[in-house]
Amino acid sequence: MSSARKRLRVPAGTAVAFQGELGAFSQRAVYQIFGHNIRPTPCVTFDEAFEKVARRKVPLAVIAIENSLAGSIHQNFDLLTKHSVEAIGETYVRIEHHLIAHPDALLTAIRQIYSHPVALAQCQKFLRKMRRAEKVSFYDTAGSVKYIREQELRTAAAIASADAARIYKMKVLRRSIEDNRENYTRFLAVALRGKYPQGGGKTTVVFGLKNEPGALFKALSVFALRNIDLTKIESRPIHGKPWEYLFYLDLQSDIRSRACSNALRHLREMTLYFRVLGSYPTY
Amino acid sequence: MSSARKRLRVPAGTAVAFQGELGAFSQRAVYQIFGHNIRPTPCVTFDEAFEKVARRKVPLAVIAIENSLAGSIHQNFDLLTKHSVEAIGETYVRIEHHLIAHPDALLTAIRQIYSHPVALAQCQKFLRKMRRAEKVSFYDTAGSVKYIREQELRTAAAIASADAARIYKMKVLRRSIEDNRENYTRFLAVALRGKYPQGGGKTTVVFGLKNEPGALFKALSVFALRNIDLTKIESRPIHGKPWEYLFYLDLQSDIRSRACSNALRHLREMTLYFRVLGSYPTY
Repeated sequence: MSSARKRLRVPAGTAVAFQGELGAFSQRAVYQIFGHNIRPTPCVTFDEAFEKVARRKVPLAVIAIENSLAGSIHQNFDLLTKHSVEAIGETYVRIEHHLIAHPDALLTAIRQIYSHPVALAQCQKFLRKMRRAEKVSFYDTAGSVKYIREQELRTAAAIASADAARIYKMKVLRRSIEDNRENYTRFLAVALRGKYPQGGGKTTVVFGLKNEPGALFKALSVFALRNIDLTKIESRPIHGKPWEYLFYLDLQSDIRSRACSNALRHLREMTLYFRVLGSYPTY
Repeated sequence: MSSARKRLRVPAGTAVAFQGELGAFSQRAVYQIFGHNIRPTPCVTFDEAFEKVARRKVPLAVIAIENSLAGSIHQNFDLLTKHSVEAIGETYVRIEHHLIAHPDALLTAIRQIYSHPVALAQCQKFLRKMRRAEKVSFYDTAGSVKYIREQELRTAAAIASADAARIYKMKVLRRSIEDNRENYTRFLAVALRGKYPQGGGKTTVVFGLKNEPGALFKALSVFALRNIDLTKIESRPIHGKPWEYLFYLDLQSDIRSRACSNALRHLREMTLYFRVLGSYPTY
């Protein structure tokens, strides 16, 4: 996260949409990809962030796609395919959860703990010790800090990032309360298709196959035969075709290379539906 | 659903756990697999249903594993692997959502609509027309009918099954309000490992691979080379090993066949972790 780190260069002040309130982990991802010289634009839902890009209200969005503990955010795979956007970069954010409260609050006086349900689930060991506090699901981690600040609650706390505590001028009551420290979220930067140059160490594709034995095996062969490494496979249902799927693959390969572009040409030949969702660097 | 349909025979009165209240779609799945001569045992969470089987409180549970629109219920893949259980049968339930209310209620007077968030999401077209009604997320479809009955609410309605309306003596205000009629949920019957005979048209396995290029391709080759059809692939994160996955495969194959047992022996050879989650018939 040093300033020497490679960034995706965009004009100063460019609006970048993300899901959550200021101080959300997504905002950190925005800064990791674009640096601090942009305008982070909070959205209530992922849908809203995608829509803003698709309708040209903002040029860019940063979207959480997978957490190393909770798994894929499947909804966002569906939204990537629904909208005419493409990925232009990825980044990984270490998720460190803190218990955050009003500067005057005392740990022993806390009776409600607000956070996003995934964050609550990732701090179960700590929460079990807080027996007298009710756990309350909220739409966003940073949003729960903001809410407690706005309502000036002294007996409520939130689970969120250190950034959220700083932004809303709140106190960290207990640091690093997550059960598992190997907690990372992967984010994609997305833009309207064709607006930014494509290419980088990772390529993501989505495709649908004929419903016949060995179809997926044959699809993967185009990469295996070229020693292209697959870092991730995900499947999502096709609406209206029960038990048929769209497959999402992440390849450790640059679409500008001959092997990758040939492999994709070969894959397209054997699919009913095919789209490159992006070829991009890691920031 | 005729009585001539094949059932999994268990002693009369056997307890079968399922997630949800009486009248949940899961209860219908219980009857489809075991017939009506069993004792359906409601559980608040999926975790509770699995725990009941693992701790020998009940011999059987029926668990929703995938919906044709919403996709896999990933949590239940994790729970299948966590507990020492195995699948002994599967069934498919057509999901038909109805708007259900107190017998004295009027459609125009409805101000809240309660249901499970997935059911709310699957009735968006209808809900958009009910502009004056607030949508309220509830833990269970049938549970929301039960709640409205218990509270004797006249201005609230629930989205749930016809069974739930019948059980709680409530009225169907509007039939089949789901956006997409191709809405099915697949359920697995699970028992403690080794308690019921294994074998049937479908086999489910879970495995972890070495992190090397072509690993998944080689794993799938054991089935492709034997013309064993893969009906489903799912990946889930391994906790503590960011960006490594467990893969779940459904095979159209009976573990008692030579091809299937050889393929699985071959697969086991190339995996770091391997387990058969069940080989079972469809009811």
